[in-house]
Amino acid sequence: MRSALFSPVELSFTAPGGPVPADRTPLTATFTHENGRHVEVPGFWDGDDRYLVRFAPELEGRWDWTTDSDQHDALDGQRGDLRIAPAVAAEHGPVRVAGTFHFAHADGTPFRPIGGTVYNWLHQEDRLFDETVEATVEAGFTKLRFMVFPQAGGYVEHFPDLLPFERTPDGRWDVSKPVIPFFRRLDDAVRLLHERNIQADVLIFNAYDNGRFGLDTLTEDEDAAYLRYLVARLSAYPNVWWSLCNEYDILDRPDERWTRAGELLAATDPHDHLRSIHNMLRLYDHNQPWVTHASIQLGQATEDFGRASLFRDAYRKPVVLDEIKYEGDVPLRWGQLDAPQLVHQFWIATVSGCYASHGESFVLPSGSLHMVEGGRLRGESPERLAFLRRLLDEIDRPGLDPIDNWWDPGFVAGVPGRVYVQYLGRSAPGEWTFRLPQGHWGERLEVGQRFEVDLIDTWNLTLSTVPRVFELSEVRRNEAFALDSAPVPLPAGEALALRIRRVTE
Amino acid sequence: MRSALFSPVELSFTAPGGPVPADRTPLTATFTHENGRHVEVPGFWDGDDRYLVRFAPELEGRWDWTTDSDQHDALDGQRGDLRIAPAVAAEHGPVRVAGTFHFAHADGTPFRPIGGTVYNWLHQEDRLFDETVEATVEAGFTKLRFMVFPQAGGYVEHFPDLLPFERTPDGRWDVSKPVIPFFRRLDDAVRLLHERNIQADVLIFNAYDNGRFGLDTLTEDEDAAYLRYLVARLSAYPNVWWSLCNEYDILDRPDERWTRAGELLAATDPHDHLRSIHNMLRLYDHNQPWVTHASIQLGQATEDFGRASLFRDAYRKPVVLDEIKYEGDVPLRWGQLDAPQLVHQFWIATVSGCYASHGESFVLPSGSLHMVEGGRLRGESPERLAFLRRLLDEIDRPGLDPIDNWWDPGFVAGVPGRVYVQYLGRSAPGEWTFRLPQGHWGERLEVGQRFEVDLIDTWNLTLSTVPRVFELSEVRRNEAFALDSAPVPLPAGEALALRIRRVTE
Repeated sequence: MRSALFSPVELSFTAPGGPVPADRTPLTATFTHENGRHVEVPGFWDGDDRYLVRFAPELEGRWDWTTDSDQHDALDGQRGDLRIAPAVAAEHGPVRVAGTFHFAHADGTPFRPIGGTVYNWLHQEDRLFDETVEATVEAGFTKLRFMVFPQAGGYVEHFPDLLPFERTPDGRWDVSKPVIPFFRRLDDAVRLLHERNIQADVLIFNAYDNGRFGLDTLTEDEDAAYLRYLVARLSAYPNVWWSLCNEYDILDRPDERWTRAGELLAATDPHDHLRSIHNMLRLYDHNQPWVTHASIQLGQATEDFGRASLFRDAYRKPVVLDEIKYEGDVPLRWGQLDAPQLVHQFWIATVSGCYASHGESFVLPSGSLHMVEGGRLRGESPERLAFLRRLLDEIDRPGLDPIDNWWDPGFVAGVPGRVYVQYLGRSAPGEWTFRLPQGHWGERLEVGQRFEVDLIDTWNLTLSTVPRVFELSEVRRNEAFALDSAPVPLPAGEALALRIRRVTE
Repeated sequence: MRSALFSPVELSFTAPGGPVPADRTPLTATFTHENGRHVEVPGFWDGDDRYLVRFAPELEGRWDWTTDSDQHDALDGQRGDLRIAPAVAAEHGPVRVAGTFHFAHADGTPFRPIGGTVYNWLHQEDRLFDETVEATVEAGFTKLRFMVFPQAGGYVEHFPDLLPFERTPDGRWDVSKPVIPFFRRLDDAVRLLHERNIQADVLIFNAYDNGRFGLDTLTEDEDAAYLRYLVARLSAYPNVWWSLCNEYDILDRPDERWTRAGELLAATDPHDHLRSIHNMLRLYDHNQPWVTHASIQLGQATEDFGRASLFRDAYRKPVVLDEIKYEGDVPLRWGQLDAPQLVHQFWIATVSGCYASHGESFVLPSGSLHMVEGGRLRGESPERLAFLRRLLDEIDRPGLDPIDNWWDPGFVAGVPGRVYVQYLGRSAPGEWTFRLPQGHWGERLEVGQRFEVDLIDTWNLTLSTVPRVFELSEVRRNEAFALDSAPVPLPAGEALALRIRRVTE
């Protein structure tokens, strides 16, 4: 059996079908690489008499596999092998943490999340479902946040018939009986995003059931059975990210229950995908070892400089501000930003060394919002966010870090000695005088080093290079200056950023 | 033997003196209260043939005690009892965490830390040592940060002869042989602060040895021996706070070593004093269970609104900004604030629901700084900080919390429905319109509730009440207004705060 690096391989087995055990998987396949490394991959029931194991190898060459099952003899002791070829073009493998605060694919390719939010995407009719993907691709977004369990409540105008589990005779959910068409649809959704180069930020649980489905009333054991099934089913797709819950703190549960669920997620995922949990008002302890990156909502965190970066200091992990309020026109304060303000907040997140997610909340003819049901995008921010992402993609390091987070009135981010980005805010001054912070890490600034400066108009999407070179003439303990260079005149009042690159020839 | 609640009791034993074992205490006394509660208190060697056990009981009534020792028969199996009377006046017991983000004494009395910093206080001649205490009392500071091990390096002009340990024949420190006069001097210093109603923020280790004493080159086992001895010696003083290290990240040690030291501190302190660790650039993981409150240095954290409070969100513990830069005139950026700026930053810390420490860094005739050697205070900030503390003392709750940390452009702190404080910054506008945030916790604002407003001039130290009452006429989802009230004229340009109190009669 031949396959390619990072691509899912599916092994299929036949045995009498039956309820999914809550506390374990029906079979486990152990894959052993020729170099001795081995990976234990949980299998899952896929309806009728069909059992599957999905594995995405991260080493080329020969892998032998064998199965174990205490449920069915037919699932136990099966054997085989795989020959894994180099990765196909455009397949970079799963995204992982890189450089403490950033992300990169398994093959080292940097990944910059600028993602969309369409909570109920999975639960829409096909036309809207497909339109959402096209809009996401067109916007240049690299990630999509969506929920496995459907949403109810304000602005939710469509409710699906296809639900994740069968019900017991007394009307409770029976998590031992997953509805296979539901989960095959979820497979297809994740695979479609993968084909379109979009990370699937899978919201495993959510706080928006509002008594309609009762999927937020499962017991902790039932949650665990669902989580094991979901992980076994989706983990081999390279583009999966796990978000344990959206606005977890709306649900009345002790933090310890979330910690146990998160630790189960970390323990059962053979492909070690990114893991987070997202809050409404009360931040989770993102220093917990199971959390790979902080996923944070806090309305004012990106409204001004010097805030979001403090979360990097507190957690020493990537910080993704997964709700910084939305471009839209609802009367609620989370959904009425204008596009210039949302773009502004993305730039602040960027020079804070953090990442943010987009959402759109114009009230649609359906009565719903894009962030709920998807479809085409109407706002003015996506084009500007794509421009921002292309600028980030020109940097050959995992990401930008604040150069001197202890104190820097310019809030300059970058890679010391190589490239710096300074964002001047929504209303630039009439001129800018060359100045760089000298941080406590990376390459040191020295007198005589030369830089060129690009002026970036973050709203009008222009980039122009100042036609002169700036040479450092004075380097103090914490700052460096090019005192022989006249100030750079700026188009005052525009939302400008500066990119300052070392000239090394 | 009679004593009073929270006051130290000292038991004295005689046995052949000798080196202090590194991995355990020479004797342990178990105190058992008549209600069954028991406390294990480590003893320590106090020179010659003298061993002491110090215990500060937190329950009135009868306590029986018995000793265990595997070192000397004379220290083993001793017995006795104590009768503990009510606390003496002014003795409120050790300070502990209260209301998640604040502090209170064991008897419930709120405690607001506005503390001074005199690193090398312990190591000065008597005249300067005493003058520092008088100046701290006069300033109204409630806490003093000082180091057990002496400091060397810039601005340190005096080096003590009295050092904590004897040396081995080959010149290394012998932590099994504490120098008793050194530690008796430390006892006296802590006791003196207690008599003057000042918390002793004891910096157990520090990063400023600079090769002079070599006290930063002890092994981890030697550090542990010292720490056990220090805890046994000082823990019974009610005013002790433990700061594991000042600027811990200057020392080249893995975080895990600090964690082990912190966990040892938590495990061995029978009186469970407050525990923290202080950074230069790299924040410690203050979510670690052994940490009771986050002690943070980050230069820009209190320079503007909306920053420091994020550390509360991240850690859900009290946040003490133990270095927010100093009032002074050194050429280094940490020590050249003017007094208005330092006072401003204290007010920002306060409305962020956090606390801060004072330090003074004018270059003295000795060549040193107050924050190094102490003496009288020269700056203009202490008087303003005492005024701030008196205002805090008028609040009958543990402290002020941001009402709506998700988003509040006014950054109003307070106790919902009762009292609010809004700080307007260093340059007030010409008028202020009544507005309160409606948070997600505590008492709800409702139409018809009435408030009175005090204008506080944080620099000129005046407080005046606006001669009218403000009645809520409109309460929205996140904000409340008194639309029938004209704006309040303000003395524009001054550093003003508003205190808004509910009128309930």
